[in-house]
Amino acid sequence: MSKIDNAVEQILESYQKYGGINLDEAANFPNRQNVINVLQDIQSLIFPGYRVDESLDSMTLKFVTGARVNRIVGMLTREIKKALFFIVRDDAVEQSHCFNLAEQASIALIEEIPEIRRKIGLDVQAAFAGDPAAKSNEEVIVSYPGLEAISVYRVAHFLCKSGVPVIPRIMSEYAHGKTGIDINPGATIGESFFIDHGTGVVIGESCVIGNNVKIYQGVTLGALSVKKELMDKKRHPTIEDNVTIYANATILGGETIIGKGSVIGGNTWVTKSVPAGSLLTQEASK
Amino acid sequence: MSKIDNAVEQILESYQKYGGINLDEAANFPNRQNVINVLQDIQSLIFPGYRVDESLDSMTLKFVTGARVNRIVGMLTREIKKALFFIVRDDAVEQSHCFNLAEQASIALIEEIPEIRRKIGLDVQAAFAGDPAAKSNEEVIVSYPGLEAISVYRVAHFLCKSGVPVIPRIMSEYAHGKTGIDINPGATIGESFFIDHGTGVVIGESCVIGNNVKIYQGVTLGALSVKKELMDKKRHPTIEDNVTIYANATILGGETIIGKGSVIGGNTWVTKSVPAGSLLTQEASK
Amino acid sequence: MSKIDNAVEQILESYQKYGGINLDEAANFPNRQNVINVLQDIQSLIFPGYRVDESLDSMTLKFVTGARVNRIVGMLTREIKKALFFIVRDDAVEQSHCFNLAEQASIALIEEIPEIRRKIGLDVQAAFAGDPAAKSNEEVIVSYPGLEAISVYRVAHFLCKSGVPVIPRIMSEYAHGKTGIDINPGATIGESFFIDHGTGVVIGESCVIGNNVKIYQGVTLGALSVKKELMDKKRHPTIEDNVTIYANATILGGETIIGKGSVIGGNTWVTKSVPAGSLLTQEASK
Amino acid sequence: MSKIDNAVEQILESYQKYGGINLDEAANFPNRQNVINVLQDIQSLIFPGYRVDESLDSMTLKFVTGARVNRIVGMLTREIKKALFFIVRDDAVEQSHCFNLAEQASIALIEEIPEIRRKIGLDVQAAFAGDPAAKSNEEVIVSYPGLEAISVYRVAHFLCKSGVPVIPRIMSEYAHGKTGIDINPGATIGESFFIDHGTGVVIGESCVIGNNVKIYQGVTLGALSVKKELMDKKRHPTIEDNVTIYANATILGGETIIGKGSVIGGNTWVTKSVPAGSLLTQEASK
Amino acid sequence: MSKIDNAVEQILESYQKYGGINLDEAANFPNRQNVINVLQDIQSLIFPGYRVDESLDSMTLKFVTGARVNRIVGMLTREIKKALFFIVRDDAVEQSHCFNLAEQASIALIEEIPEIRRKIGLDVQAAFAGDPAAKSNEEVIVSYPGLEAISVYRVAHFLCKSGVPVIPRIMSEYAHGKTGIDINPGATIGESFFIDHGTGVVIGESCVIGNNVKIYQGVTLGALSVKKELMDKKRHPTIEDNVTIYANATILGGETIIGKGSVIGGNTWVTKSVPAGSLLTQEASK
Amino acid sequence: MSKIDNAVEQILESYQKYGGINLDEAANFPNRQNVINVLQDIQSLIFPGYRVDESLDSMTLKFVTGARVNRIVGMLTREIKKALFFIVRDDAVEQSHCFNLAEQASIALIEEIPEIRRKIGLDVQAAFAGDPAAKSNEEVIVSYPGLEAISVYRVAHFLCKSGVPVIPRIMSEYAHGKTGIDINPGATIGESFFIDHGTGVVIGESCVIGNNVKIYQGVTLGALSVKKELMDKKRHPTIEDNVTIYANATILGGETIIGKGSVIGGNTWVTKSVPAGSLLTQEASK
Repeated sequence: MSKIDNAVEQILESYQKYGGINLDEAANFPNRQNVINVLQDIQSLIFPGYRVDESLDSMTLKFVTGARVNRIVGMLTREIKKALFFIVRDDAVEQSHCFNLAEQASIALIEEIPEIRRKIGLDVQAAFAGDPAAKSNEEVIVSYPGLEAISVYRVAHFLCKSGVPVIPRIMSEYAHGKTGIDINPGATIGESFFIDHGTGVVIGESCVIGNNVKIYQGVTLGALSVKKELMDKKRHPTIEDNVTIYANATILGGETIIGKGSVIGGNTWVTKSVPAGSLLTQEASK
Repeated sequence: MSKIDNAVEQILESYQKYGGINLDEAANFPNRQNVINVLQDIQSLIFPGYRVDESLDSMTLKFVTGARVNRIVGMLTREIKKALFFIVRDDAVEQSHCFNLAEQASIALIEEIPEIRRKIGLDVQAAFAGDPAAKSNEEVIVSYPGLEAISVYRVAHFLCKSGVPVIPRIMSEYAHGKTGIDINPGATIGESFFIDHGTGVVIGESCVIGNNVKIYQGVTLGALSVKKELMDKKRHPTIEDNVTIYANATILGGETIIGKGSVIGGNTWVTKSVPAGSLLTQEASK
Repeated sequence: MSKIDNAVEQILESYQKYGGINLDEAANFPNRQNVINVLQDIQSLIFPGYRVDESLDSMTLKFVTGARVNRIVGMLTREIKKALFFIVRDDAVEQSHCFNLAEQASIALIEEIPEIRRKIGLDVQAAFAGDPAAKSNEEVIVSYPGLEAISVYRVAHFLCKSGVPVIPRIMSEYAHGKTGIDINPGATIGESFFIDHGTGVVIGESCVIGNNVKIYQGVTLGALSVKKELMDKKRHPTIEDNVTIYANATILGGETIIGKGSVIGGNTWVTKSVPAGSLLTQEASK
Repeated sequence: MSKIDNAVEQILESYQKYGGINLDEAANFPNRQNVINVLQDIQSLIFPGYRVDESLDSMTLKFVTGARVNRIVGMLTREIKKALFFIVRDDAVEQSHCFNLAEQASIALIEEIPEIRRKIGLDVQAAFAGDPAAKSNEEVIVSYPGLEAISVYRVAHFLCKSGVPVIPRIMSEYAHGKTGIDINPGATIGESFFIDHGTGVVIGESCVIGNNVKIYQGVTLGALSVKKELMDKKRHPTIEDNVTIYANATILGGETIIGKGSVIGGNTWVTKSVPAGSLLTQEASK
Repeated sequence: MSKIDNAVEQILESYQKYGGINLDEAANFPNRQNVINVLQDIQSLIFPGYRVDESLDSMTLKFVTGARVNRIVGMLTREIKKALFFIVRDDAVEQSHCFNLAEQASIALIEEIPEIRRKIGLDVQAAFAGDPAAKSNEEVIVSYPGLEAISVYRVAHFLCKSGVPVIPRIMSEYAHGKTGIDINPGATIGESFFIDHGTGVVIGESCVIGNNVKIYQGVTLGALSVKKELMDKKRHPTIEDNVTIYANATILGGETIIGKGSVIGGNTWVTKSVPAGSLLTQEASK
Repeated sequence: MSKIDNAVEQILESYQKYGGINLDEAANFPNRQNVINVLQDIQSLIFPGYRVDESLDSMTLKFVTGARVNRIVGMLTREIKKALFFIVRDDAVEQSHCFNLAEQASIALIEEIPEIRRKIGLDVQAAFAGDPAAKSNEEVIVSYPGLEAISVYRVAHFLCKSGVPVIPRIMSEYAHGKTGIDINPGATIGESFFIDHGTGVVIGESCVIGNNVKIYQGVTLGALSVKKELMDKKRHPTIEDNVTIYANATILGGETIIGKGSVIGGNTWVTKSVPAGSLLTQEASK
């Protein structure tokens, strides 16, 4: 038993020694599982009636919704407050603002839900229209990973714009883990966006994507260079309205613009802008 | 508190306004979680003895199996009936057939289980034979994502052929989420199929794949064009027996045939047929 | 009901007939869920304080740690013993060693935890330094899939070197399923390793990776040929210190060496060694 | 297997044959588990801060409370509606009122919570004052079965007075099962009521109990005769203010009045009224 | 830490030293939780439609029932086999019979379910008729502890008569814990039995109770003397048809017979037989 | 919705107004559910091998035990510290001792486990010897409520003697709720104690009970008078060695001594001492 005993001692010492990977009592930091729980509650608010035990019955829907909204605001406020405290740390003046900011951000998200629902409604229609295999909106909602990634993005992006740290990223990585689609919550994405299959898609923080854009699995919208100094610059491409990008295309660079209505073929490698209406293709292998 | 109150009202109104993403009481639609529960039960029927609390003991195996089969048929019938009702909607004559069809399809699946097990047995052997790292069948079953995706496909494909809507897709997207491998349940896949690593693989609805085919991560077997009008046409390639396709190859088009025994190198881009015994490669980058 | 009854009989018969995919009572084999439970416990040991209900309080931390270490050793010993028994099967002499070996391997892992924590601490710093978007170590720990894959690798690799069969593979496939990053536990990886985005990354069994290496999504470090005879040969490339490999690059072959400080561009295809300081790029598509 | 098959058939037939103990699809009836879940939520509303994961923090208390109140009203309305439907059955006019009545009764309970809390506050003080062993109000709340039974009674009694069928009884039997104290929700009980130990206490439907009454384990306040015809008569005793009733005393009959300030000794058998200030005792055994 | 270490050693030693309260690996003994799980499944078989997620729908009821019956037989067989093995221990010949006996007893119980349901139907009616407060059979089923105790008794008694050891006792103590009513599974109880309130009721192993008997809380039907030698003798009273026994009456002795139609008043103490039609009462205290 | 909104406001105000029944953030108080979790862990330490998933296997028992002991000490220390803080409140000097006292008390309990196991071993034997129906020690352990109450008492009593507030009471009320047996943790009880059936038993705080005592359901060992002033006096009876007390007997008063070897009949009422070897009985009713 003394080997065990000794190992425990060593581990306790290592907690003193290798500090950066412990979460201290003193520090505030959002809890991953709590954030995911809130997100799932928000998803049920956006898509009412899909839970096993719940339907849109006229009788209790208002109470179910009232309960859900209060629960979301309560939980989210607590996590956002921790995220803000973590940044201001010992600054007592700043700390005093954190709670109000957290509550405001949570309520603002709830107030935005109808607008988020409107946009996601268009995304669902885009998926339905864009995939010959889709038979109904309901099928898209329960089974399309692209839609899951986009709807989480729309929530995370709103929080991001409200100045909420870390939490939008936890949300987008949750969706990344489930779908293989990695959309940075900072990206700007227009309406009626559709991602098909989706595994391996990466959309960078300073991407700007127009309306009615359609992309396939493995597409990277990335940076040409990854240097710290560029942190606040636009490093990722702009995709204008009505563009389609086929599987595994790679489009890089902050000044790269894919003009309206262009079609980017699969497996292409694009580091320069192309004018509206372009058609880029990959030659076949030999 | 009145902000919350107001936000709840707005959300309730948005439920009236943005209809396509609610699930109405009146409508019948399969519940995603229920479908996944049935699928996991079917997986335990296919691979007996792998659950923590269960072994193949001669004493109670028949009752465990009997319970499982009855539970699967009961749950699956209910979900299929909802899927069928969702389509026929107000047509009372059609509605009257839904329950019988649902029950028949569920029982047919159960009757097919021995045949599905035979095929999956061959897939396990193909994985064992095809991967130098595989040490036993059991290792393949508990840890290979390719096998998980293929075994879910074999179940979903059978339901698909029985005319069950939506549910096969929910099943295949569940496997897609877990493995990164996206096999459309409509695809036709022969025996002894092996997918290694698998992340990013996409196999389209009208693909036809022969026996003893081996494919690696990131392979797309897709369509050249994605138009609604082509919905019922063969849009995806045919892969004949004994073909190997290496990582990230992209093979597109409904008339593209990869002849028997061909080897398609990694990162290749193929949009035309190749004869039996071909070897396609990608040139190295400079 | 008799159709059901008959189907159950057929399934029971199929359990006799298609043997390779049942798990027999007689056989010992690690249970997947148990292994994952142990792994999650080890993750909490490595990153203390991140669970909802737990903080690094000076009062009870030693008991929480003591409990966790004992639980891990108990559970892991049992699973390793099963893994070893599965191999020696009927050899009674060998069987007699299995328990001691299992206990030794479990305790050795626990003794290694401080060293594993030291290395993972460097990986966290590498992620923080390498990604302009990273705001804190804590953010990296709770949301970066690359870090999750690497930290599971470091645990699985240690068990692998201790001669523990199957269990390291179950661990790495668990991480693969969650992150889309597939690192074979046999690979040799240096310090300060960073994988960004990560979906689709594959790192083969005999890869050797130096210090301060950075790779992006979709990178394959694979074998040129996959033949059984090569099972014990070095089949996968060597990546020297300070190399960066951009998205979707494919580097193949056991004799391929990427020299120190090289930068491998996205979408490149590399099957031969390149000297230190090389810069490989993909030309843009037209 | 055919024995099993046959037994299932027999059981299915018995579902047709022995009707009174099935719950039909057509019938509405409150679900026991749902009612208990609502009750536990109400208990958390009454005693805030006692849940593991929850404290009275000024920041989120209003949202936690808002969520809880909405959830209670939603769930309770649904169960009450079922209870009312069960009674009116096929009467369509009456059915149309059920939902409104259910909602009104649920909201009325919520509006009563502050008053219920005031009364339970007095009950807690009575327990603290009446038991030499009680060290704090908090101890009474977390550990006294008498308080649990009384607080459930106060909720169930309010619903009972609002005309809610069946549900108050399910609540009181839940408390009976946990504490061994059986208080009919129809009983009328004054303020500052204390039950010590409590196992075996029975308080009948038409009991009237004044203020500051204290009773011990095994006390029965029952009926002399149990005939259907007496269903709407006062069948149970009246206990005036400041009475103490010791263990296992039995007091029976609707006209029996225990006058103010009386002390009823343990094991006594009382079927007639006693004037204020009486002292009844049991002689010792020989 | 060494105090903890030492304490663990002491506890491990105490496992060697104080043997009678460990459960050895070698020994077979039914697991309490498993037995309770089976019992709850049996209760759902007896009262179909009462679970939250389940109704008597004509479509899937047969499969739900088929699944439940198979699960019960499988689980119960395993537990009964352990109970039998525990008794025969090292006798290999006897051991060989245990499995068959266990399976037979489980199947016999399932075959008895329709008859048990018939009897419990009568018990429900007796409760409805005997309690002025009962409004419906459904109310009796979801809320009367007396009915819960009696229905568990009817199951446990059948197993007891089939020679199943220990398990009936675990079942009856489970009901005792929930209701405060302690009915020995060996007792013989006629039809239409009703227990009101019930806390503190004790019914001994060799009691014989006729039809239409009604008893209240705190009634003991016990033995006059508790000596080992009397183990197989009738030690508990006989209660003939149509007898009513009021609260806290104590009736003792194997030769004590309460004649048909008698009424035994509350708090009485009876150790001798009384003829049919007797009325026994307790005098009031002074 | 505004009724709901208003009700929430009223409830929030009531949290300000009726203070004594809230649990404040500032206050420390043990959490009931946490205490019960620790207690159940202690029960598994006392009776090893009875959990579904656990056996006394020589391989992992030491680690399972080590994990359990550490977990118990960690959780119990935290709850005891809260219980002590609650008492000292704002006294900073006293606060500084609380943690050490909490840890000491937790470790002392663990060190006492072997002795507690020795005593409980005797209690099991007493139950086996005293009940003709008991077939094995194992049956007593899994199904006798008397044993559950006594074993919880032995743990709670030790904590009580160590000066731990509140927690012993939460433990004993947990056992009371499960068994109907209410043993105050302050009572002094000798070895080989047996309670049969048990519902309704009450054993007061200053009771002193010798060795080999046997009591039946409904027995009260209580106080004659319940005044606050007597709080620290001996208010409950002394029961000497080898006494048997039959069902529903009531023995009251701090100076009442039941002499060695006496037999107290059922339903008796005793308020004075009786000499050794007495036999008290209740006359039969007429």
